Amino acid sequence: MRLTIHPPRAGILSGSSPPATVLGWNMQATRHQPFSLASTVFGVSRQSGRLSMRSRIHSQLLGIQNTPSFSAGKKFQLDDLIEAQQFDREILADIFEVAREMEKVEKNSPGSQVLKGYLMATLFYEPSTRTRLSFESAMKRLGGEVLTTENAREFSSAAKGETLEDTIRTVEGYSDIIVMRHFESGAAKRAASTAEVPVINAGDGPGQHPTQALLDVYTIDREIGKLDGIKVALVGDLANGRTVRSLAYLLAKYQDVKIYFVSPDVVKMKDDIKDYLTSKGVEWEESADLMEVASKCDVLYQTRIQRERFGERIDLYEEARGKYIVDHDVLNVMQNHAVVMHPLPRLDEITVDVDADPRAAYFRQAKNGLYIRMALLKLLLVGW
Amino acid sequence: MRLTIHPPRAGILSGSSPPATVLGWNMQATRHQPFSLASTVFGVSRQSGRLSMRSRIHSQLLGIQNTPSFSAGKKFQLDDLIEAQQFDREILADIFEVAREMEKVEKNSPGSQVLKGYLMATLFYEPSTRTRLSFESAMKRLGGEVLTTENAREFSSAAKGETLEDTIRTVEGYSDIIVMRHFESGAAKRAASTAEVPVINAGDGPGQHPTQALLDVYTIDREIGKLDGIKVALVGDLANGRTVRSLAYLLAKYQDVKIYFVSPDVVKMKDDIKDYLTSKGVEWEESADLMEVASKCDVLYQTRIQRERFGERIDLYEEARGKYIVDHDVLNVMQNHAVVMHPLPRLDEITVDVDADPRAAYFRQAKNGLYIRMALLKLLLVGW
Amino acid sequence: MRLTIHPPRAGILSGSSPPATVLGWNMQATRHQPFSLASTVFGVSRQSGRLSMRSRIHSQLLGIQNTPSFSAGKKFQLDDLIEAQQFDREILADIFEVAREMEKVEKNSPGSQVLKGYLMATLFYEPSTRTRLSFESAMKRLGGEVLTTENAREFSSAAKGETLEDTIRTVEGYSDIIVMRHFESGAAKRAASTAEVPVINAGDGPGQHPTQALLDVYTIDREIGKLDGIKVALVGDLANGRTVRSLAYLLAKYQDVKIYFVSPDVVKMKDDIKDYLTSKGVEWEESADLMEVASKCDVLYQTRIQRERFGERIDLYEEARGKYIVDHDVLNVMQNHAVVMHPLPRLDEITVDVDADPRAAYFRQAKNGLYIRMALLKLLLVGW
Repeated sequence: MRLTIHPPRAGILSGSSPPATVLGWNMQATRHQPFSLASTVFGVSRQSGRLSMRSRIHSQLLGIQNTPSFSAGKKFQLDDLIEAQQFDREILADIFEVAREMEKVEKNSPGSQVLKGYLMATLFYEPSTRTRLSFESAMKRLGGEVLTTENAREFSSAAKGETLEDTIRTVEGYSDIIVMRHFESGAAKRAASTAEVPVINAGDGPGQHPTQALLDVYTIDREIGKLDGIKVALVGDLANGRTVRSLAYLLAKYQDVKIYFVSPDVVKMKDDIKDYLTSKGVEWEESADLMEVASKCDVLYQTRIQRERFGERIDLYEEARGKYIVDHDVLNVMQNHAVVMHPLPRLDEITVDVDADPRAAYFRQAKNGLYIRMALLKLLLVGW
Repeated sequence: MRLTIHPPRAGILSGSSPPATVLGWNMQATRHQPFSLASTVFGVSRQSGRLSMRSRIHSQLLGIQNTPSFSAGKKFQLDDLIEAQQFDREILADIFEVAREMEKVEKNSPGSQVLKGYLMATLFYEPSTRTRLSFESAMKRLGGEVLTTENAREFSSAAKGETLEDTIRTVEGYSDIIVMRHFESGAAKRAASTAEVPVINAGDGPGQHPTQALLDVYTIDREIGKLDGIKVALVGDLANGRTVRSLAYLLAKYQDVKIYFVSPDVVKMKDDIKDYLTSKGVEWEESADLMEVASKCDVLYQTRIQRERFGERIDLYEEARGKYIVDHDVLNVMQNHAVVMHPLPRLDEITVDVDADPRAAYFRQAKNGLYIRMALLKLLLVGW
Repeated sequence: MRLTIHPPRAGILSGSSPPATVLGWNMQATRHQPFSLASTVFGVSRQSGRLSMRSRIHSQLLGIQNTPSFSAGKKFQLDDLIEAQQFDREILADIFEVAREMEKVEKNSPGSQVLKGYLMATLFYEPSTRTRLSFESAMKRLGGEVLTTENAREFSSAAKGETLEDTIRTVEGYSDIIVMRHFESGAAKRAASTAEVPVINAGDGPGQHPTQALLDVYTIDREIGKLDGIKVALVGDLANGRTVRSLAYLLAKYQDVKIYFVSPDVVKMKDDIKDYLTSKGVEWEESADLMEVASKCDVLYQTRIQRERFGERIDLYEEARGKYIVDHDVLNVMQNHAVVMHPLPRLDEITVDVDADPRAAYFRQAKNGLYIRMALLKLLLVGW
């Protein structure tokens, strides 16, 4: 969301010009949300622009439409959701609190109409059906509507050479929020700096996938009941997995965290994350003994070994993928309160017989993605 | 829909776990539908699990939202719709009765909001625009919402090797009912035994397409006014047509039915269906004389000769497709009350000049698919 | 929309037959719109069928649902929107007046529910994401719902050889209005003459794209405040651009219009349009001097040189595309009230630094497409 205020032109433009449109959008926002338009700017320093009046009233959440107290609502601290760097402990806690409320939204309850009249555009430059359905379900569960572009790469305009910026300027004219998946790192940030409406990054190539990182941390909190003092084992492909890297990054925001890395040699966690954890005082160790780690951790976060990373070295792939399997033997040494997580899809790195164990948290984790996305859509569109 | 009750875990899971989700879903169902959760199980014996309290009140259908009597609603006998074997005369009559009500649902009438707040996922592993649009229209005509996956085969997860079961577990977290089209026979049954939400089979490869079978029988009932004593001619490709095979199967449930098979030699009706009809006491005969059959039947059900079945034998295809054409000459010998049906799409096996005759029922038949699907969605989601 | 009344058949058909469906649709229309069903027929002479009772009441527009005065609404003069030839000054003014109202439709205002309960099918035989999103946004902004077919060319039925007419007969059974994009000139007209529901042409190959033409003229009116006496420069590919040809055609309906053609030699405006303008008394001239034209015109309508038109003559393409660029130098000579328009997508025929100038009207123009389409959907579905 770009919040530059354009100089208004003479009367004839008042209805159709993009600035006026933005003002229209913000006017509506402002009616409910007494904040200064100019008070937040996207960028490195945006966190410093956080509003001090943070006493938003959560109890209003579900009665939002019918109660006059809605007018006391506050703007969300972020204008867009682009990268994990935007989060600190406080904002994570805030988002999780709303996600918890979202678990209680029922059909035809007032909460289920919080986003009535709002339109979300899903602009996906590469397919990701799981992520797309999760966002679209979230929007519709809150009464909002969706414009779908499942294959924006073939967007006729993009194919003809239109810039991402021009596409965004067109799409924002048709929608109130843009959820974008792109194959290029940094694309979401470019979109956000162009768009007048909020942009959510649903994954940009090797870059970020912040809502996945959020739902992972949220799931740990929901399943274990704490984040400070948590012991997390990251297992599998730690070199290429965007997911585990983001998770390690976010866990560093909490106290007394211990991280175990368990991976085949060819896909070990890279030094940048290790150095980062060390610099933040997070304890970590590498281990080749999955059973021992499993017996100690609160969370065993398994990942898929990605064949496509091995090129023609199928032998290395086969060796790597068979090395650390989570099966009933692993479950047997895990603590009672511990859980197994996985970003999905899984192949055979978790055996199917694990599914029935209550500690298998991965499908609950997927469902948590829905609540996190409901919370974010609500916060970005109508505030607290 | 799988109705196993998972052992609830400790409090922290109560919101996000799949069991709790199911309970949430069923709680809502139960609030309106006083039935035992454990009373129905999918499988061969599911028909025997039918509830005795069948005195649901049809007159409530359209006033369902506003009247307290809604709380007296009853659960539909089926949890999923997978195969024609699930139907008997009684359940067919029940579904048809609701479909008739659906013909009266008008814009902004209370009936048009019966499924407000419900989300249907269309999970299509092969394209079938006609069937997809019919289901999506049905859902939206009743106030429900839709998540569309037009090309689930390229579902990024499936492409990466995820099992159908895992995909279903994810998608059911985002929706209240799954309509699935698959290229593999038996896929719908596998999905239903995994999913906690209802599954409707929208065609699984060479297997079943039960809603097509339903709409065919419904159309005969609507057009001719009876099913017992009906005379139906099945014309065209009887060897490969899933449609005509299912129709023959369902017609066997009625009294005094007579079936004529009229087809080129290379695509004759197979013995299994003939034997089945004989075993059920259904009279049938094969004939090469379309005109004579046309003069006697109540329903002339024409089908397309499918070129793809003939491989390189284009000569055989050309011979077969030209053999039995329904044109004005055929119409001229048909009885006044008789009708021509066709599952569509048609090529030239029915000439275009037939369309204007009131006995051309095929476009009405397509429209009936809408009413049948509205009825099924309503019954599976909110019961009678 | 075909308005032939089929002879109703005996009672059993009253619900499911296409004629009855149409009657159902029209009955609803008629309830609010006291017009004779037989009074309008699509075709060359349709303009002569215009209703004399044109005193529709615009002030009712947004209160349409709640006020009894809605019942005084009038039918829109057109049944379908197929080609620019359907427009005259009066109907253009009427549509623009409704589009202006549409600019004021806000979330959850009564106006935003004008099309609640209505279903639009987008039947796109070739991709055009921009146009599709614009129509779908328009429908949803008015409370309507959408069935999407992004790739109707692979519509399983079409692939199997089904005629366009049969596809239309099926799709109209599922929806209340069809928006069609096709690769064949004349396809929209064929669809309209088959369908009982309104059809909007969203571009048919080299043929027409009437909503683009409408939004262009609307934008000129909104930006400059007049159409009579307007001076418009058409720049770029004038030989192949459907857009500029339609625009020239429509501008001829106004008084004292002056048109400048500025284009590379290889893509000059063709004689048919020049002759047409001359026959209508419209002044036009060709010029090779963009700066001089820019200094005199009210509207500078730039277009993209389409590479695909040049085949292997890349040298000619490169020469043509670099010839007339709109940049800051051009802006500097333009009048203060003048604007730059472009149908988008643009490549580098308008430099990015022009975007910030208030005279850059192309993104407002795209947004106007939304208002025009909202107006048309409203008019075709519920009338004035």
